[in-house]
Amino acid sequence: MTDLAGWRKRIDEIDQQLVKLLNERSQCALEIGHLKKAMDVPTWQPQREADILRNVEQANAGPLDHAAIRRLFERIIDEARSLERHSMEGGSVFGKD
Amino acid sequence: MTDLAGWRKRIDEIDQQLVKLLNERSQCALEIGHLKKAMDVPTWQPQREADILRNVEQANAGPLDHAAIRRLFERIIDEARSLERHSMEGGSVFGKD
Repeated sequence: MTDLAGWRKRIDEIDQQLVKLLNERSQCALEIGHLKKAMDVPTWQPQREADILRNVEQANAGPLDHAAIRRLFERIIDEARSLERHSMEGGSVFGKD
Repeated sequence: MTDLAGWRKRIDEIDQQLVKLLNERSQCALEIGHLKKAMDVPTWQPQREADILRNVEQANAGPLDHAAIRRLFERIIDEARSLERHSMEGGSVFGKD
């Protein structure tokens, strides 16, 4: 590929997949939150967060460096946590409240 | 799925795919940066960034809300921009310098 339009089209395709996966991941995090609540275990488990960050660094082959991957996943984890908190407070998972 | 371990395994699988796609996206952005440099056009094009954010909001079916998707993609775009800047300054794309 040598044209701007072609690379941009590829980025747009990747973005569609990213949106889908980010939402699927958030749904999993919500399910985990509900299970934890039912089992009465702490929501925040720092060891699990450390494991996630280690896993993604190990999977990283670049060109993003490890620090960039870590920053991105810290944000992803943070958004999942916000959503979980909102869901626990409001009840509905799908944003009606 | 009713167990924590199962949901966590699914998150780990999604994270592997996310790392791969985020890197593929960054590689596309680097290619675009090189093309722009060769064509002597401005690197930063705010209209393209606005288009990207509009596209991902349109693709978003939740449970993440539009503001969360926007924050995530602002970070993704920002990391691509940092990588591009670093690559232009240092020459190598693959992080030797």
